[in-house]
Amino acid sequence: MSPPKHASDAGDTTGVKGFFHPTSAAVIGASTRPDTVGFAAIQNMLTSGFTGCVYPVNPKAKSILGVRAYRNVREIPDPVDLAIIILPAAAVPPTLDELGEKGTKHAIVISAGFKEVGGEGLERERELKAAAKRHGIRVIGPNCLGMINTDPTVMMNASFARVFPKRGKLAFMSQSGALCTAILEYARVQDIGFSKFISFGNKADVTEIELLAALADDPLTSVILMYLEDLSDGGAFLRLAQQVTRDSKNPKPILAVKTGRSAEGAAAAASHTGSLAGSDEIYDAVLEQGGVLRVETIEELFNYAEAFENQPTPQGRRIGIVTNAGGPGIMATDSAVRAGLTIPRFSDYTLKSLRNQLPPTAALKNPVDVIGDAQHDRYLAALDAVIADENTDMLLVIITPQTMTDLDEIATTIVNVESYSQKPIAVSFVGLPEESRTVQILRERLIPNYPFPEAAVRSLEALARYGEWVRRPKSKVKTFKVARDAAAKVFESERKEGRLNLPELKALEVLTAYGIPIAPYRLATDRKEALAAAKELGYPVVIKIASPDLLHKTDIGGVMLNLKDDKQLAEAVDGMLDRIRSAQPKATIWGVTVQKMIPKGKEVILGATRDPLFGPLLMFGLGGIYTEAFKDVAFRVAPLPEATAMEMMASIRSAKLLQGFRGEAPSDTAAAAECLLRLSQLVTEFPEIRELDVNPLVVYEKGKGALAVDCRIILAKESSHAQ
Amino acid sequence: MSPPKHASDAGDTTGVKGFFHPTSAAVIGASTRPDTVGFAAIQNMLTSGFTGCVYPVNPKAKSILGVRAYRNVREIPDPVDLAIIILPAAAVPPTLDELGEKGTKHAIVISAGFKEVGGEGLERERELKAAAKRHGIRVIGPNCLGMINTDPTVMMNASFARVFPKRGKLAFMSQSGALCTAILEYARVQDIGFSKFISFGNKADVTEIELLAALADDPLTSVILMYLEDLSDGGAFLRLAQQVTRDSKNPKPILAVKTGRSAEGAAAAASHTGSLAGSDEIYDAVLEQGGVLRVETIEELFNYAEAFENQPTPQGRRIGIVTNAGGPGIMATDSAVRAGLTIPRFSDYTLKSLRNQLPPTAALKNPVDVIGDAQHDRYLAALDAVIADENTDMLLVIITPQTMTDLDEIATTIVNVESYSQKPIAVSFVGLPEESRTVQILRERLIPNYPFPEAAVRSLEALARYGEWVRRPKSKVKTFKVARDAAAKVFESERKEGRLNLPELKALEVLTAYGIPIAPYRLATDRKEALAAAKELGYPVVIKIASPDLLHKTDIGGVMLNLKDDKQLAEAVDGMLDRIRSAQPKATIWGVTVQKMIPKGKEVILGATRDPLFGPLLMFGLGGIYTEAFKDVAFRVAPLPEATAMEMMASIRSAKLLQGFRGEAPSDTAAAAECLLRLSQLVTEFPEIRELDVNPLVVYEKGKGALAVDCRIILAKESSHAQ
Repeated sequence: MSPPKHASDAGDTTGVKGFFHPTSAAVIGASTRPDTVGFAAIQNMLTSGFTGCVYPVNPKAKSILGVRAYRNVREIPDPVDLAIIILPAAAVPPTLDELGEKGTKHAIVISAGFKEVGGEGLERERELKAAAKRHGIRVIGPNCLGMINTDPTVMMNASFARVFPKRGKLAFMSQSGALCTAILEYARVQDIGFSKFISFGNKADVTEIELLAALADDPLTSVILMYLEDLSDGGAFLRLAQQVTRDSKNPKPILAVKTGRSAEGAAAAASHTGSLAGSDEIYDAVLEQGGVLRVETIEELFNYAEAFENQPTPQGRRIGIVTNAGGPGIMATDSAVRAGLTIPRFSDYTLKSLRNQLPPTAALKNPVDVIGDAQHDRYLAALDAVIADENTDMLLVIITPQTMTDLDEIATTIVNVESYSQKPIAVSFVGLPEESRTVQILRERLIPNYPFPEAAVRSLEALARYGEWVRRPKSKVKTFKVARDAAAKVFESERKEGRLNLPELKALEVLTAYGIPIAPYRLATDRKEALAAAKELGYPVVIKIASPDLLHKTDIGGVMLNLKDDKQLAEAVDGMLDRIRSAQPKATIWGVTVQKMIPKGKEVILGATRDPLFGPLLMFGLGGIYTEAFKDVAFRVAPLPEATAMEMMASIRSAKLLQGFRGEAPSDTAAAAECLLRLSQLVTEFPEIRELDVNPLVVYEKGKGALAVDCRIILAKESSHAQ
Repeated sequence: MSPPKHASDAGDTTGVKGFFHPTSAAVIGASTRPDTVGFAAIQNMLTSGFTGCVYPVNPKAKSILGVRAYRNVREIPDPVDLAIIILPAAAVPPTLDELGEKGTKHAIVISAGFKEVGGEGLERERELKAAAKRHGIRVIGPNCLGMINTDPTVMMNASFARVFPKRGKLAFMSQSGALCTAILEYARVQDIGFSKFISFGNKADVTEIELLAALADDPLTSVILMYLEDLSDGGAFLRLAQQVTRDSKNPKPILAVKTGRSAEGAAAAASHTGSLAGSDEIYDAVLEQGGVLRVETIEELFNYAEAFENQPTPQGRRIGIVTNAGGPGIMATDSAVRAGLTIPRFSDYTLKSLRNQLPPTAALKNPVDVIGDAQHDRYLAALDAVIADENTDMLLVIITPQTMTDLDEIATTIVNVESYSQKPIAVSFVGLPEESRTVQILRERLIPNYPFPEAAVRSLEALARYGEWVRRPKSKVKTFKVARDAAAKVFESERKEGRLNLPELKALEVLTAYGIPIAPYRLATDRKEALAAAKELGYPVVIKIASPDLLHKTDIGGVMLNLKDDKQLAEAVDGMLDRIRSAQPKATIWGVTVQKMIPKGKEVILGATRDPLFGPLLMFGLGGIYTEAFKDVAFRVAPLPEATAMEMMASIRSAKLLQGFRGEAPSDTAAAAECLLRLSQLVTEFPEIRELDVNPLVVYEKGKGALAVDCRIILAKESSHAQ
């Protein structure tokens, strides 16, 4: 996987990957006093089985924990691949200078007292960054827990965590160091293992994006878990995430908890789109667009991770359930339906096979109830039959411990079945604690087990969702032939006039330049021109005041609808121009826009806004109450790949109103999608567009197209790169 | 609390409460063979510390586990309060006869092989019921795990569960026996205690409703937990649940997991209301109306239960958060906002107090961050300040274990603070397992602790929801003066005519009798009468064909709208009558209904249907797509208390459209609510109404009332008590 182009000024994953394979490490600030971070750090490095050489650095101690210590970096006689720094904040930048001289290229700065404390901490962080850049040292942190690597060729606990986790295929990285300690403890109890465990703190240098790229390339990692509070570069993250989760040769799922509602996105906005784009909705949309599974809680993160760690991705949403008790079987069925899985009927062959092998009181239909006195032989028969059934995509096994239940034998049976199953399996030994021997039998083989069936079902559903994402065709961004120069000229001349909020006529010119169909209109400076325009367009028509100074046309009586003949039109034009000219003597009045009254259709809103983090965002929603009252809208980051426009439109709750509801003809969603794609190209090619609404776009029956009626475009103050 | 009137044919809670205090118990089917249910049952009775006397009954053994055994019930020399039966199914009814002769009044039948196996099991269950009734024996089960009672004056494990739980204030009852064993194991690990633990199996005699009533009266129980698959009597359950959760002197929360989607409610239905009333939606509505908190998973059930067990109910939704780490604080804030809690600002006094006692780097605003090196003194200062703040209703304490954290001292501090706090407290020692000493300190004092903050937040939110329910005014069912006889006459005469699907005119007569305002109308047999009617009503008018045989008026051109004058009306009446008489020569034609075209307003649908379990259900929704496409409707069981009508209307998502959205005047919801209440009275007084739709009811601006336009009523086949 190649590094993302926008990731960072030093976006070189080879550099970041160096953190994963040090052969020598200095612990700078190692301490002899127990209960200090400096002691925990050196103790961890010396007891984790590190395959390289450790150099404690301490100005006073001769040795620490029996290992020769050095007064400073310069004294170390050998090269140092990695520095682990636990010094007071002020001492960190000079130490980086020493390391630079020594040729060290990687440092983990555990020390706090930087950006996170504000004030002089900000300055210290600037100094740290400058020193790192000066010497080409890649720095993780500061203000972090450190990094753990369970790779048997490395075995490094470069952190002050008390727990060294067991080996596993999950990589975890976190913006919160405190959470890391808690998670290590939780993972110990839950028997969850990690490949890499990284606390990246203030990300003064190495960002979460670079770490993601490095983990994507790490052969020991099969699932990437993230705890995020913000992103360094939204667009770069999105592109990399798509690459990692779907488009690379060896896709890996990313599961993320994203917390923190920033105020940035909620800033006052003049357009519908702007006001609807709250930061959390955008994160939801972006993570979905990047193929990242967003989860809401840490429990859920690890529940899913257990299933993702070693189970194959299912080909569909059909779940087969085997249980030995009715109640938990019903609970699982309910959860499955609620989660959007389906409960298939088994094939006749499966039913026959079950009938032959199970007692007559067993329930043969899905969920299969092997009955309370079942032992492992019955489970084996049922599992084999259900897995082989062409109507199932995944399997849930529920075992409620009862008097006759041979728990360990059943666990062993599941391990055997799982070894040859092509379909994912989740297990619920109901109520059994993780520490129990039975559950251990499963966990040793990385088979997910949950104390209740619902979590098992939700985890399988997450796997199915990921499967759908991976199978989704990679559609490309289409480039339409447009009159880009014409649009550029409009923006340039409007900006010269000092107008950032474009008059409607100018906004419509831009849409025209980008090939978006508009209800036919003409500018008329007076009654005569208006009558000529109407003759050309055909009655009925609408007139709207055309003025660069009057943007709220409706409020000043600047719109008149449904004018049916010359007489009505002539009166309307004269009346409107007289009235507005006398009420607004200072306004420049170009005349009136005469626009054909177009037939009714479904009204939708297309919009765009610029997010400070993600760049241009597109919005889609149905008009009126659907957008305003129900906020039933979808966002995606531009540029949109072709297929994404349709997906985006289908993702809102009111989408069914476009699909031919109640015997209506379906709407021309393809035409609306093309408009979205053309807008996507427009806002991508002109970053200076701050906000844009096409409201409404009237969508007709399938095959009959769509027409924009009105448009507003607001430019950013700076002309080059907005914001 | 008095027993519900409809609970059961033998609905005497004194009888059921007898299960809670036996002083002697016979274990019938006690076995000497380990690994049998009969052995587990006798062993449990003899080792749980039972304060009464145990009599093993076994036809062959002289003694079991050292205790004198009896060959049969008759041989037991003393009275037997309670029989625990673990015999083959066929032997159970004769044994009940023996117990009856002995005067035993309570039996727990653990044996399976009854209704649940179908076939001859059904007959055996009938025999069991008959025997129980014959002798006045109350029976729990059959097909259950049994019952556990941790009351120190009883100490009874009348089950074959391997685990005897610790004492607590939670009562749990379950329709699934298998789930019980799993939950006992789970509760052991989670350190959760119970007052009573009841597996009620097939509920051949004692129902979940009687058990609920008994637990409501049990002074050792403060929270009632239920796992339900169905209800014996929906209406009785609802009334009792309201009583238990709110209206009794000493309300107790009920938390329930309800699974299983029955097909009953989904039967084909002719009305909107009927077709929308899926069984799960109804259960949702009914549980809500009863004040029962429905939870989706067993984990959630016990998470909530921990908070409900000993914490007071908060007065509002404002949560104060104290943390020692930013990340978990943000996660908690996010979860709180998502759950509908609010994050209040602290008072100036609180901020001042925090500033004086916390280090300068601490974050003083909510959530308070006491910083990673905090020890118990800082927690004490912060907790005291935040609890005392008048702007908080509840408190969440987050402790992320870090190097300096004195975990046990902090736990002890929380125990102290909790002892004098009037506000509920939930704690998250992040990542710590339940078994840890620190968590034990909290659990011993019944303070809820969760390994991650989200579960703590959700549990506090559930407490807040319960508080809102308890504080909700108990409004009564209002009885309107109506012309009940007039409605009865319509039903009687229509039934005589063999018409269950009432002609519109007849349905409108019924609405009139119950005081529901209707757009003015007259029946006209011919043109002349129509013209006279229109003169009286005023133009414009609508005409609709009036015929008992033609129910789908629109389909046959039997409706004409917006007739503006005598000429249009005359033509329309003649045309319609001629056309329909010749097309439908066999149909009885009464003439046409002339109805005033009423002004536009908000269209809503009021409906009613009869649920086989819950009786009359009312429905409310907005007209058109809101009901049909979005299924945005609310259900409640009739009769509706006054306040419930308004609550019901406010509970749909589109309710805001009635509240004056986008500068519109608010609608006359009071008028619509009165119509709902009058309909509630109608369907309660006439159980023979199977389905009813008022569609639309046009609701005008506040103060201007509402008018029904059309109505359909369908009667049940049987006239007395429907279904």
